Amino acid sequence: MSRERAEDALETSWTANAAAWTAVVREDRIASRVAGTNAAIVSAITARAPRRLLDVGCGEGWLVRACTAAGAAAVGIDISAPLIDAATAAGGGHFVVMRYDELASRRAELGDPFDLIVCNFAVLGESLVPMLRALREVATDDGALLIQTVHPWVARGDAPYADGWRTETFAGFGNAFPASMPWFYRTLGRWIADVRTGGWQLEAVDEPLHPETGAPLSLLLVATPMR
Amino acid sequence: MSRERAEDALETSWTANAAAWTAVVREDRIASRVAGTNAAIVSAITARAPRRLLDVGCGEGWLVRACTAAGAAAVGIDISAPLIDAATAAGGGHFVVMRYDELASRRAELGDPFDLIVCNFAVLGESLVPMLRALREVATDDGALLIQTVHPWVARGDAPYADGWRTETFAGFGNAFPASMPWFYRTLGRWIADVRTGGWQLEAVDEPLHPETGAPLSLLLVATPMR
Repeated sequence: MSRERAEDALETSWTANAAAWTAVVREDRIASRVAGTNAAIVSAITARAPRRLLDVGCGEGWLVRACTAAGAAAVGIDISAPLIDAATAAGGGHFVVMRYDELASRRAELGDPFDLIVCNFAVLGESLVPMLRALREVATDDGALLIQTVHPWVARGDAPYADGWRTETFAGFGNAFPASMPWFYRTLGRWIADVRTGGWQLEAVDEPLHPETGAPLSLLLVATPMR
Repeated sequence: MSRERAEDALETSWTANAAAWTAVVREDRIASRVAGTNAAIVSAITARAPRRLLDVGCGEGWLVRACTAAGAAAVGIDISAPLIDAATAAGGGHFVVMRYDELASRRAELGDPFDLIVCNFAVLGESLVPMLRALREVATDDGALLIQTVHPWVARGDAPYADGWRTETFAGFGNAFPASMPWFYRTLGRWIADVRTGGWQLEAVDEPLHPETGAPLSLLLVATPMR
C-alpha cells in the first residue's frame, strides 16, 4: 500500500469504526488499557496538575472526561466527526473536529496555549514531525507533551524491527469494526528522532508494565519544548 | 548479593578475567561485536571526527587503536591494571588505570577536555550518575557522549523487565574466564533518566540490527552536555 493510500485509509477508518470504537472504549474491552495504560496516562497527566490540557486524537473523549473531573480545562481534537459527536454528547470539555495537519492553520480555534498536551495512542500515521512543530506553537514555554504509544519492542511481534506500515484488523473485538486500520510502526530510534526534529526535548520515558507478565504495556514519552 | 558485594565482584572480575577477555576481543570471538556493534561504535565515532577522544572502560584498547588510526588523539581509562598493561603494550593511545569514581578527583591526569567521550559496553555497575557528572567536567561544551550497551529489550530475556543485578558467566567462551561478573541491568527508562540526571541531553538513539535476525544488537545513546 502506498503511503498516501495508507494515510487515507487510516483517516477514513476512524469514521467507519467510530461506533464500534466508542463501544469498546466505554465498555472497557481493550485489555491493555484496563491492565495499565489508562491508569498510566491519567496518572502522568494529573501528576502535572495542568491548567489547560489539549488531547490530540481524543476519540470519544474518555481521557478529557477523566482529567477535567480532576480540575483541568480541556480541549479535545479528533479527525473523526462521529467520535467528536460522541465526545461532545458526553461532555466534560470542548471538542473540535480537526485534522492533525490543520493544527497550525486553525490554532486560533483552540484558544489559549496549553501547559499540557497529550497524544494517547493517537499517533498512527507516518507524518509526525509537522504535527509536533504545530503542537509546539500551541504549548506554553513551560509546557509538556506526553505521547503514549504501543511499545516498539512488544508491538514488533515477529516482524522486522523496522519502521513501516502495518494493519490493525480489530479481530480481537469480533466483527464489530467495518474497516481495518493501517498504522505506522516506529522503532524507538525513530520516535526519539522525530520528537527532537519536531522541536521537543525528551525528558523521560515510562514503560508501564503488565501486572502479571511484567512485559511493557506501552511506551510513554515525556517531552518539553526545546529552547 | 548486596549492591556493595556486587560492585566489588564486578571490579575484581576485570582483573581476574583480563587475559581471557583480551584473547576473546583480539580473536574476534564475541559474536554480537563481529555482527555489528564494533562497526556501529567505530562508525559513530569516526563520523564525528573527534580531535580528542576519551574511551571510558577501554579494556585492552582495541577501540582506541581503531580510532587513533583514523586520526584522533585518544586516552583510555580502565579499572583493570592488567587490561591497561595490555592496551599500553599494543599502543595507539595513552592508557591510565582509573576507577570511574576517581574521574572527578584525578581529571587533571587526563589532560585537555575531550570533544568525544565513549563508553562501549563499559557501564556495568549500578552507579552511573556520578560518573556522567564527572565526564561532563572533562568534555568540551560542544562535545558529545556515546554510550553503547546491551539492548534492554533484548537483554531482558525471560527475566522481569526491571532494573537489577544479573550475572555474566562467560560460559559461551568455554572455561577460560576464572570469575563470573555481576552487572547491573537497566531498563530503557532508567538509562534515559540517568543520562539526564547526569547532566547530559539525549540527542538520538541508534539500534544496530543483527544482519540476519533483524533484532537490535545494542542500544547506542548519543548525548550532549546539558546547557
